[in-house]
This record gives sequence, C-alpha cells and structure tokens, in this order.
Amino acid sequence: MSETKILLSEKEMPTKWYNIQADMPNLPKPPLNPATKQPAGPGDLSPIFPMALILQEVSQERWIEIPEEVREIYKLWRPSPLCRARRLEKALDTPAKIYYKYEGVSPAGSHKLNTAVAQAYYNKEAGIKRLATETGAGQWGVALSQACNFFGLECTVYMVKVSYHQKPYRRSVMQIFGADCIASPSNLTNSGRQILEKDPESLGSLGIAISEAVEDAAGRDDTNYALGSVLNHVALHQSVLGLEAKEQLAKVDAYPDVVIACCGGGSNFAGIAFPFAHDKIVSGAKVRLVAVEPSSCPTLTRGHYAYDFGDVAGFTPLLWMYTLGKDFMPPGIHAGGLRYHGDSPLVSQIVHDGIAEARAYGQTAVFESAVLFAKSEGVVPAPESSHAIHHAVVEAIAAKEAGEARTILFNLSGHGLLDLPSYDAYLSGKLEDYPLPEENLKRALEQLPEV
Amino acid sequence: MSETKILLSEKEMPTKWYNIQADMPNLPKPPLNPATKQPAGPGDLSPIFPMALILQEVSQERWIEIPEEVREIYKLWRPSPLCRARRLEKALDTPAKIYYKYEGVSPAGSHKLNTAVAQAYYNKEAGIKRLATETGAGQWGVALSQACNFFGLECTVYMVKVSYHQKPYRRSVMQIFGADCIASPSNLTNSGRQILEKDPESLGSLGIAISEAVEDAAGRDDTNYALGSVLNHVALHQSVLGLEAKEQLAKVDAYPDVVIACCGGGSNFAGIAFPFAHDKIVSGAKVRLVAVEPSSCPTLTRGHYAYDFGDVAGFTPLLWMYTLGKDFMPPGIHAGGLRYHGDSPLVSQIVHDGIAEARAYGQTAVFESAVLFAKSEGVVPAPESSHAIHHAVVEAIAAKEAGEARTILFNLSGHGLLDLPSYDAYLSGKLEDYPLPEENLKRALEQLPEV
Repeated sequence: MSETKILLSEKEMPTKWYNIQADMPNLPKPPLNPATKQPAGPGDLSPIFPMALILQEVSQERWIEIPEEVREIYKLWRPSPLCRARRLEKALDTPAKIYYKYEGVSPAGSHKLNTAVAQAYYNKEAGIKRLATETGAGQWGVALSQACNFFGLECTVYMVKVSYHQKPYRRSVMQIFGADCIASPSNLTNSGRQILEKDPESLGSLGIAISEAVEDAAGRDDTNYALGSVLNHVALHQSVLGLEAKEQLAKVDAYPDVVIACCGGGSNFAGIAFPFAHDKIVSGAKVRLVAVEPSSCPTLTRGHYAYDFGDVAGFTPLLWMYTLGKDFMPPGIHAGGLRYHGDSPLVSQIVHDGIAEARAYGQTAVFESAVLFAKSEGVVPAPESSHAIHHAVVEAIAAKEAGEARTILFNLSGHGLLDLPSYDAYLSGKLEDYPLPEENLKRALEQLPEV
Repeated sequence: MSETKILLSEKEMPTKWYNIQADMPNLPKPPLNPATKQPAGPGDLSPIFPMALILQEVSQERWIEIPEEVREIYKLWRPSPLCRARRLEKALDTPAKIYYKYEGVSPAGSHKLNTAVAQAYYNKEAGIKRLATETGAGQWGVALSQACNFFGLECTVYMVKVSYHQKPYRRSVMQIFGADCIASPSNLTNSGRQILEKDPESLGSLGIAISEAVEDAAGRDDTNYALGSVLNHVALHQSVLGLEAKEQLAKVDAYPDVVIACCGGGSNFAGIAFPFAHDKIVSGAKVRLVAVEPSSCPTLTRGHYAYDFGDVAGFTPLLWMYTLGKDFMPPGIHAGGLRYHGDSPLVSQIVHDGIAEARAYGQTAVFESAVLFAKSEGVVPAPESSHAIHHAVVEAIAAKEAGEARTILFNLSGHGLLDLPSYDAYLSGKLEDYPLPEENLKRALEQLPEV
C-alpha cells in the first residue's frame, strides 16, 4: 500500500517565513496616505499596527524568522498534512496525480490561524491589550479570537451582519474563545452609524466592517487592528503553507505542474503559491500558479489594476491592486470569504507580470466539485476552498485529455462544517449562479479614486 | 522544543484489531433470543447482520486481521494524532502529563468511522445493497453515511426526532454523502407508527430509532442493520484507538497511570481502554481504566447488571449488561450520544469484575472543563467527549494534590463543531444539571424482562 498522507514531523516545520518581495521582478507601487496621496510611511500605519508588522510589510529580506512562541502555537496543528487524493483521481479516471494541502486541521478550521497567531504575538509583544477586526463568513474572526485567547489579548470582531445571522455557529466559536462578536454595521462606530442612517436594514459588507474595525482601533491607545488577508505581512505568514507542501512533495520525489488556490484577499493563494513562484522566478521552474475566484466577484479576471481603498469609508491607505471598486457589491454567494472588491498587492503584481494566472467560476459548478470531493475523500470542504477543488478537477480532466500524468497541487484552505446550509441549498437545487451586476461594476470602477 | 503531537506513519497503523474476549477472566452471559429466552445463535442474527460480523461477535481469537480495503479507507485520516496537552497542564498547574488521542480528525468528526467503515465493508462483501441504522445526536449517522458512500451502499438513518430538528447540520452531512435521513419515530415502520399513535408529538429516543432500523432491515432481503456501539464487533473495531495510543506513548517512553473515555454504548471506552486492559489482565500493569458517563444517564454507576433489550420495542436479543431499563427516559442533556439505557456487555463485565471503574458527572461541570480545554488546546470538543476531559481534569488536580507526575491518557472522541448551540447555552448561563428522574428510573428497573 502506498501513502495517502505525507506528514512532516514538528522538527521539520519551517523556522522561517518566505518573503516574495525579495525575488519579485517588479514590486507593487507603494501604498499611499489616503489624504495626502503621498507614499504611506510607518507613521501612517503605527496607530493601528505594531512596528514589527509594519517592518514585515515593507521588508525585502527573503527569509524572516518565525518566533519560537509562534511556532509553539503552530505545533497545536502544524505541520498540516499533504494528502494524495487517490479516490478523486479514480473518480475522474485521470492519469494526473492530485495532492492537496489540508488546512482544515487547524482548530480554527482554516489557514487563517497561521497569520492570526503571528499577528496576536507581535501585538502582545508591543504591549497592545486588545485587537479589533472584521470578518465576513467568520473564518478570520474565529482564527483571530483563538489567537488572541492564546496570547491573553481581548478581541472584538465586527461580523458582516448577513453572515452574523446566517452563520451563528461561527459566532458561537468566537464567543467560546472569549471574543466580542458584533453585527456590522453597528451603532458603536461613526462609520457604522452613518451606514445605518442611510439604510437601517443594511446587511453589511466586508468593506463596511473593515471601516468599523479600523475606526475602533484608531480611537483607542490599547487597541490595534488586524487584517486577515490582502497585506504583505499576511501573505508572508501564510508562506508556511507552500514551504511545507514543497518539503512534503519532495519526500515522494514530486514537484507540481500546477499549484491552485482560491483567492479572495489573496493570502491563501500567496501562502501556497509564493514558495513555488520563487522557483519559477529564480530557477525558471515550469510550474503554473492559478488563483481561482468566483465569477460574481472576479477581481483578478475583470478588475482594474489601480489604486483603491481597502474599505468602504476610505480609512485605509490606497493600495495598488486589482480592484472592482470599493463600492462594488458582489451578489450573495455562499463563499463569503471571496466577496472582496480588492486583492493583495503582491498577488496582483504577480498576476499582472504573468507569473501567476487567474480563473473565475460560478458557484453551482464549484459545489458540484465540492460534493464530488467530499464523496471521494471524506472531507466536506469550505465553499471558498471548493473553488480550488473545482479548478483542480478542470486540470485533472485536461490532463486526461492530453494523456499526461501531470502533478496537481491545491490548497484545501478549510473545512465546510460551519457552512452546511450552502450544501443544503445546492443539494435541493436552490443554488443559483448570479450574473455579474455589470452596471454596479461599471459605476464602482468609474468611482476609483484619482491619484 | 519538545513535541506536541506524537504521530505514527501509515506503515505503523495496526494491521489487526484486538479482541478482549481472548483475555477476559469472565465472559458476559450470552445474548438470548427475545422470544425463546434461549442463547441466540447465528441464525438469530443473520437476518440483519453479515456472517463475518456475527463471527467477530463471538470470536475468542485475540487478533483479527483488518482487511486491506478497510485499512485503505482508514488511511484517509488514520493513524490519528496523540497530543500532549501542555497548555492544559499549565492552566491546571499540575505535574501530571496529559495526553489525548484525537479522533476528531476523521472526516466524520468522531471515532465512529472506525467501525462504520468495517461494517460497510463486510456488508458489501456479503452482497448487501443497503444499510439501515439509528442515530441520536448524529455522529453515528454521519459516520455510517460516509462509510456506505465509500463502498457504494445505500444508507437509511433513523434520527431521533429531537436531534433531527436541533442538529440540522449533521443531517446535512448525511445528505451530502447520499444517505436518507428520517426523523424517528416515523410513519415508515410499524414500531414508529405505534409510537406516533400513542403520542403524535413524540420526540423520539435511541431505543425507538433502533426498533425502526431493525424492523426496516429485517423486512428487506437487500438490507442489513448496523449498530454504532454496544456490540462486541463494534468494540473490536474501535481497538485501533488504544493500539495506536499505546504505540504512540511508547515512542516517548510513556505509559498511562489512568486511561479515560466517555461511555454511552461503550465502544469509545472499549476502543481506547481494552488494549490497556490486556496489559492489566495479562501482565498485571498498574493502569486504571475510567469510563465516564452523565449523571443523568448513569448506566454503569446506577444501573442493574441484568438481561435487557437493546431497544424499546424489544426486537433485539436480550443482552447481559448494566442497564437503567429500556423504558428509562434520560433528561435532554446535550451529550445525546450518551443518552442510552444500556451498555456494551464487554464493558459491563470489565467494570463488574473491577478491571475498569466508572464515574458520573453533571453537564455544567463537563462544559466548564470543555471550555477550559478549548481555550488551552484550541479544539472545541464534542459534549460527549467533554465528559472524558472533565475526568482528566479531576485526575490532574488529584495528581497535583498528591504531588505526583502521573500520566493521564484520554480519548477525545470527536469535535463539537456541530454541537455549538450547547456551548451557547452554557456561555449564556442557561445550561442546567437535570436531577436524575428517580421515579422513572425505579419503574424502568422494575420492568426489566424476566429471564
């Protein structure tokens, strides 16, 4: 019998994060102060971030040490397994070898904990007592609430109102770990109150919740802000994913022809793909890197490459990235974690430079592959992660058509056990593919800030 | 840094199950045909079980080969990790070393898949097309639906009605894997209809659901019945738990002073404890074995040692076991998987002979330890498994008081991600400890069948 899971011992866990900024042929343009439109310096960020993270944000060191305190917490679930999806290969009758890195083993149920632990650690070290953040579907809020609990920090999570009511189980987990979970827009912030004045029934959005969390953090000395994706330091922390996967593949003498991950704010894709992008840039490795997004929020495939705000109120620095416009309101697909107008500047640049590529799919095709995966491998995947599964299936079928035993690696960023109503909708035939709201998109793109 | 998780490679996974019947000083009295009250033979069981499982039920071979097809499926998640709960030790300031075997990594989220896969395999081999079963909180229904999916069997699950409505997420998972999940009592069986005639609002019970599933299986040639606990072959399949744990502890030169598991039908306790009971019986190892049950369904601590039916309708053979009487109706605690009037005959005998001991706790104390565990180790435990956690905490405190660095092993049989409303109840102060319904218990014990 050959192996199904390729494991690493705790001793083989990476001790350094990989920073792609050291190797990129072109760096993204710098973030701009939202008022002056001048490049943002450490002083623009220090009211809401600790200096250690600000330095990571701009660092061009290739390797950055993972603090021992962070590695100690990582060991609660890391290294995560790399699994060979033999039963899926058989179901697809493909000569391709399909491997998936499984991050659902983290106590948060997703990859988000990799950066949450690091961010909580650096904030604790800086003497911060409390973190404020936003969450959409709740994966990030769960992760940060756990990480704050581990380091004795208070935690307040502004959760997009529609998800707060649709996904009460994620709120329960945050509460178990002692976090305050608040439906956003709320009455606790100016930006929340402004939205509620205009629309008391507002269901909220990630952009609004970010505004509330940033405002909360900026207004209190003991409080910082934490972001679960988009920023460079988040991509840095997630590099443990790809570093481990590469080491695991090496144990079975394998190297991927294609690396796949879903892409919302970009940290999940960055985490698995950047260590392979290194090989591609530095040694010309022939590996394709594919970011997968929902066709109803197609940032990389339909957005403009431009400066835009990260939030709706316009509190954040302007980031140079692919964006659909901060006022774009994506349809209510079940992959809440992918409903974001912008994207990581690092991922955007890598895609812009042709080092990575992007694909977009509708949710019914994605759920079809999710159920096929569950029935083959046992794991019920998160709707977000299922975007990666779907493209892996597409690649496996292409390999079959080409008659080639290609090696496919994808990141299964989380399990879907707290997203089951979306499966009920799919299985009962009630799931629909929303058309892209073209008029809304056009207007949002017209309103990109002038720089 | 020292290890947090002790892992085994797939090559180190046990290839044989351990059968305690080979080593017990006294075997339980044999099951009786419910009509004739004579010892039940294979002919009594063959209408609902395949011969391979009937033979395992009565086998006195010490080691029974795990079929390769079963091991191939096991490899989707086994060997499961053994974890050192260092952060819990620190929170308790105890010199004890606390290890837990973590079965929540199975795609079913619990240990139940260990026997579900074996049972589905043997039924498939016997030419059976469909399995019928019951489920309480839904852990077993999820596991059997996955196992049937892996072997291409149809699956019908009679789910206790109160849980069917309280735990819709578990029903969703069963449906993803293609199972038919029916609220019990239902109109589909005579036993269901009889209950509904008497009480159209009946919330159901495990005993009623067993009657429905057995009736379903007995009435169709292509269908067999599967039971998730209680029987000898189920305890056999779960022995992978203890066998792995022993091997894992040996890797760090450790041996437990006490082995702990929660106990409903008994297979979870049997799984982790019997391989250590072997050492105790055969070589006089000084290890204590503790089965933990809810004080509102205290089968081992308050039941009679007697012949009783496994179900409410009286379809099953009479089993020699600790029982509260089949008509005992336990209060609606959140640990639905522990609300069973009887217990495994093998576990009952081991407890009766003083090889193992039993403890009972109320649910508020159990949830207090569950939250402490979650905050320490990250994992949100199932309410059932939290009974084991609570006793581990009691043992760790006792070790501290004695000033002894005792080694504590418990089985964390599943995660609680589909049981979160019970945590909401605990955190909001709405959880109560139900008094044992003494009158109901007295009546149920008076009605034990005469043999």
